[in-house]
This record gives sequence, C-alpha cells and structure tokens, in this order.
Amino acid sequence: MSAVAAGLEGLVVAETALSSVDGTNGILTYRGYNANDIVNKVTFEEVLHLLWYETLPTQSQLDELNSHLARHRKLPDEVLNVIRALPKSGPPIDALKAGVTALGMLDPEQDSWDQGDLREKAIRATAAFPTMLAAYERLRNGKEPVEPDAKLQTAANFLYMVHGEKQSESKARAFDTYLMLLVEHSMNASTFTARSTISSSSDYYSAITAALGSLKGVAHGGANMMAMKMLLEIGDPNKIRAYVDESLQIKRRLMGIGHRIYKTRDPRVNHLMAWSEKIADEVGDDTWYQLAHNMEVLTNDHPYFTERKLYPNVEFYSAPLLYNLGFQPDLMPAVFALSRIGGWSANLMEQVADNRLMRPQAEYVGPANQEFVPIGERG
Amino acid sequence: MSAVAAGLEGLVVAETALSSVDGTNGILTYRGYNANDIVNKVTFEEVLHLLWYETLPTQSQLDELNSHLARHRKLPDEVLNVIRALPKSGPPIDALKAGVTALGMLDPEQDSWDQGDLREKAIRATAAFPTMLAAYERLRNGKEPVEPDAKLQTAANFLYMVHGEKQSESKARAFDTYLMLLVEHSMNASTFTARSTISSSSDYYSAITAALGSLKGVAHGGANMMAMKMLLEIGDPNKIRAYVDESLQIKRRLMGIGHRIYKTRDPRVNHLMAWSEKIADEVGDDTWYQLAHNMEVLTNDHPYFTERKLYPNVEFYSAPLLYNLGFQPDLMPAVFALSRIGGWSANLMEQVADNRLMRPQAEYVGPANQEFVPIGERG
Repeated sequence: MSAVAAGLEGLVVAETALSSVDGTNGILTYRGYNANDIVNKVTFEEVLHLLWYETLPTQSQLDELNSHLARHRKLPDEVLNVIRALPKSGPPIDALKAGVTALGMLDPEQDSWDQGDLREKAIRATAAFPTMLAAYERLRNGKEPVEPDAKLQTAANFLYMVHGEKQSESKARAFDTYLMLLVEHSMNASTFTARSTISSSSDYYSAITAALGSLKGVAHGGANMMAMKMLLEIGDPNKIRAYVDESLQIKRRLMGIGHRIYKTRDPRVNHLMAWSEKIADEVGDDTWYQLAHNMEVLTNDHPYFTERKLYPNVEFYSAPLLYNLGFQPDLMPAVFALSRIGGWSANLMEQVADNRLMRPQAEYVGPANQEFVPIGERG
Repeated sequence: MSAVAAGLEGLVVAETALSSVDGTNGILTYRGYNANDIVNKVTFEEVLHLLWYETLPTQSQLDELNSHLARHRKLPDEVLNVIRALPKSGPPIDALKAGVTALGMLDPEQDSWDQGDLREKAIRATAAFPTMLAAYERLRNGKEPVEPDAKLQTAANFLYMVHGEKQSESKARAFDTYLMLLVEHSMNASTFTARSTISSSSDYYSAITAALGSLKGVAHGGANMMAMKMLLEIGDPNKIRAYVDESLQIKRRLMGIGHRIYKTRDPRVNHLMAWSEKIADEVGDDTWYQLAHNMEVLTNDHPYFTERKLYPNVEFYSAPLLYNLGFQPDLMPAVFALSRIGGWSANLMEQVADNRLMRPQAEYVGPANQEFVPIGERG
C-alpha cells in the first residue's frame, strides 16, 4: 500500500479526556479511574454521569439522572410504530439504526451542538435504546413488546423487557457490569465513525446511526456474535483442542482472541469471566463458559498465540455471559450498542467542542485522459 | 491542536481508480474522463455503469442496467411501510436512512462483500432511493406516494414521482446533469465515512446509512439547503451587495462559496449555472438564478474572496436549479444523496477489495489516577 494510511494506525485524530487505554500493560481508565476497580463499586448510570458530566455523581445527581432516564424509556408512539414496521428478518442492531433515526426526526433541535442539548439527546437515546431493542426482539419472536418498568434501571429493565418478567439480582448485576465495561474505549472504530460523521456539521442521531453501522462489523462489535457462533459450533468443551489445531492448520481465525491495541489479556475480561461463570452456575448450564475457559487455557499455553500476543478480548467472555442471560448470537452486537452509546455520546460532546471536518484524500491510480467514444461505437 | 491530525488534511487513506480532483486547475475526472466534457453526451445511468463496471456501457449493457434498475424502483411493501411510519417532521434525508436500513434487513446476503453482490446491492439501493424519497416527500405533504413509471429513467422518474405528473424533457435533462455532476468526488467526507464504516467488516447498507448522516451536515451535502435558505433570505437580486457587505462585517459565512479542495471555480458549476438559467426561464422565475449570479459576479470582483480563493462551489448553483425543479430547501441534501449513492457504492466496492480496519488513536489529556470516593462522600 506504499504511503497509503489505510488503517490510520497510530494516527492521533483527537485529544480526549474520556478514557485511556494502555495496551501494553492492559489498563483501561475512565476519566482517570481504573475501570476494573470501579465496576464493583458503581452502577452503569454512575459511569454515564462520569462520562457525560465529568464526575461520578453525588446521590442526588444520580437520582436526578435515573429519573431523567426513566422518563424517556417509554418509546414515543412514532418510534414504536417504526420498530413494528421493520422487516423481522434483519439483524437486531438494524432496528436500533431505524429507531434512533425516527427518534431524531421527532427532535425539533436535531442539529443542535449545544453541550446541554447534546446531553439531553444522549439521555433520551440511551434511555430509548434498550426499549427499542427489546421491542424488536419480542416482535421478531411473535410477542408483543413489554413496556419499561419505572422502578428498574437500564440493565434490569432490559432483561425484564426482553424476557417479559423480572430477572434475578445477580443477572441484573452481571449485565450492569457488562454495560460498564463496554461503555467507552478511546478511539475505537465506531467512535471514530461517530466523530467523523458529525464532523461535517451533522447531527447527534446521524452520528449514532453511523456508529451502529460500524459497531455491527465482525471486526468490531460483531465479534461477540462470531465468538458465540464459534462456541456453539464446537459445542463440547472436550473438543477445544481439536478445533484449535484444525484452525491453525486451515488458518481459520479464533473469534474473540487478539486485539489491535491490547498485547496482553484485555483488562475487561476478568470481571466478565467471573460473571460468566457465576451466571452459568445460576442457570445450570456451564457448557459455554467452560468452552471459553478451556480455549483460553489452551491458547495461553500455545506458542502460536503467546508469540503473537493473542489473548482473549472483551468479546470472548461476553459471548457466554450474554448467551446465558438469554440473548441469541445475532442479538449480541446490538446489546453491545446499549452500552457503547454512552461512550459515543461523550465523544460527540468532545468532538463538537473542537471540531474540524474530517476530509482526507485518496490517491488516483486509474486511467488518465480517456477519450470519449459515442455509445454506438463502444465495446 | 499540536500533533493532532483532527481534519486528516492531505492524508492519503486509499488508492482509487474512480475519480481525480485537480483542485488547482479545477478539473474533475471519472475514471479518466473529464466530467465536464461527458455530461452533455451521456446519461446518469451510463456514469453509474462507468463507476460500477469500469467502462462506459455499450447500448446493450446500458439497456440491461436500465431494466435492472427499473425492476427495483418499486419499493418492497416492508420498506414503504417503514417510510409511512416515520415521523413527518424530520429532514427527508432521514427517511433515506430508515428506508435503506429496512431494505438491508430484507437482504439475506446483507453482509456479502462479493463484488457481484455489491453491484447488485448498489443497483437495488440506487433504484429504490428516488422512490423512497419521493414517497416521503408526498406523505409529509399529505399526499399518497406515486409508483414509479417503468418507462422513465432515474431523473425523470424522480421528478414524476414527486410531482405526480411527468415533467418536461428539459427539466429531466437538467436533473440528469445534476445527478451526473454530483455522483462522485474522490475522498469527500461522506465517502470517507462510508469506507470507514464498512472497514470493520460491516455491510453495504450500514455504510450507506452512515454516509447519508455525513452528507447531511451543512459543511458537506447540507450546503445546498443552506445556500438556498440564504438566497431566500436575501430575496431580491438588488440586495446582494448589502448582504455581502454585512456578511463581511459580522463575519457571516456566504453559503456555497469556497471549498476545501478547489482553489478555483468548481468545475461542476458551469453546467449547473447554465441549466439553472434555462430552467428559471422555463418556469418563469429567474429570481433565484439571478441572485446567485449577482453574488458570483460580486464576489469574483471582491478582494476578500479573490485573495482567499473563495469561488462558488457545486452547491451554489445547485440551489436555484433544484428549487426551480420544485424542491424545497430541506429536500435538497436528500436529493444530493440520490446522485452520490452511485459514488459511495463504487467506493465501497474498492474498499472491500483491499480493506484495512480504520482505527486511529486519541491522545488522553484527562486526569490521571483518580481515587475512588463512595457515593455518600462525593460532592
């Protein structure tokens, strides 16, 4: 590719005060707090406050944010009607794209870049996302959508709306931890796409829609789906070695192993592994956790992976956890978005505060000076 | 911004054989053909063939492409139902975002990167775009959508579906010329967003949806709307001087004047100006053409603009032309998309043929090592 910066590797395109990723030592911080340290002490909504308002909230600030989110969990009729009208055959993350577009069409201040307005948009979209996704999930399974429960926060509410009944405290806490760990990760591909989209003086909803499209890719947020499909394909924890050996032989990539930034174990894996095991115990099916665990043990001890510094990434233990929470593989990329919208929103607030149109160049390598030939003489 | 490449200026992110833009001399080529030379000799569909199949078509290739497009102009019921369900208050380009998402949800090979499959997706989406947009435009004005006429090509069909009756040959040709001139422009912001979106191994429809969001911005495809709003605000060709003087005084930007790449008159302006004048004559209202023309003459003779090399860009004469074709300002960014989807599609074919995940970095400048404080002790 000569001088073409196709992957933009190492190129710094923004300053950020949101998160830092130390890929060598495996440390992720949110505004200077070690993510691994705080997830056992806070909730997803506290992390949203940290990202959107710069500080962890006081109790009254948290109460205010929670009631603000609660007011916007129920979908406007127009948005629910769009979700109902969608083809039932598509990937659920597409329902979020259409739903957030409809939500934006109802916003008379759609284009506003005011920081307060952006926070308001972020609250409304983040509150609406789980309701949209749960509605689509139920509709595609022939069930009526369930309205949000005003007493439940993000994680517990989504589990409730998907399943139609309240789930256990431990499941809600496991999912809340997942939401906290996936919410923000510096200049990842979808965050970059969100920033580049809004940089043309576009709007919040357009940027979120674009980010959903980027997240959907299997080299990004779609990897949890691919990891789960791989685990389902293997099916038996005792078949891990044969599958890994065959993969190396036919050069098939192991899904969920390796990361462009982390050259060590992804720091987000610890809590996800623990919760994955715990929820597996609770539901009485540890097949998927055990499969993942066996694969990690095996690859950690295999020179092909250790020499290339290929370790399990965040999608790897997400997959068995989300599966045991009752989510099919094709729902998983959309579930990722319920978390990452928090980070996208914060990044958009940063981007518009110091915006520059992202407009790189291409090098023309095609034919020059072609002579026009009338249509009757072509061919 | 120190070493931060916020605008990606001058950075080459891809090789392309689609178009070249010589910003110094004002020359735009499509696969080596001078765009200004060929638009009087070909049709929009011939340019689509050039971009998607590498050559201008023979008559039988063109017939084949036209009948292929014709087969897909009528919307699947599911897509029309989504368009019907959308809030009527939004910008029409948002209807394209939701519509193309629904179209993608119906595609069982949604994720395919096969070049033939991508051409098929491009044909279906490019055929469906004008029908979606005309349907939304009529619905928001309280009218029933009009089905496409199987005998009309892209430009004439859109005019027919919007107005509910066939428009003149000259209007169809004016709009066809517009479609040809706007279809492709190297690594512009929306094309870059499309490429960066699909680079995560995402799908065609996600990339098109993202590109629509980027195009919508007033620093990109939304500029035609802003230029028209400016002309409407001025209202009288004799008030141009006062408006320009006041703009310089209060540092108000003149919409449609200046371009990041062109440091000369945008080469696409010639034909658009001529068609703008001709259609103004035909409809018997040359106010908007005259306003634009007076502003160009005045700024071409004004040192503020000549010193900064600020010349009319493609949006500038698009605005009065599109307005006289019967399109309100807020429809204009979406009308731009009816053309540019051709270029986006060709760029996506190129991108997946030599893909690399676009994943730049951010520099963390926030607080370090924050100590956790329990919620009761914060504030």
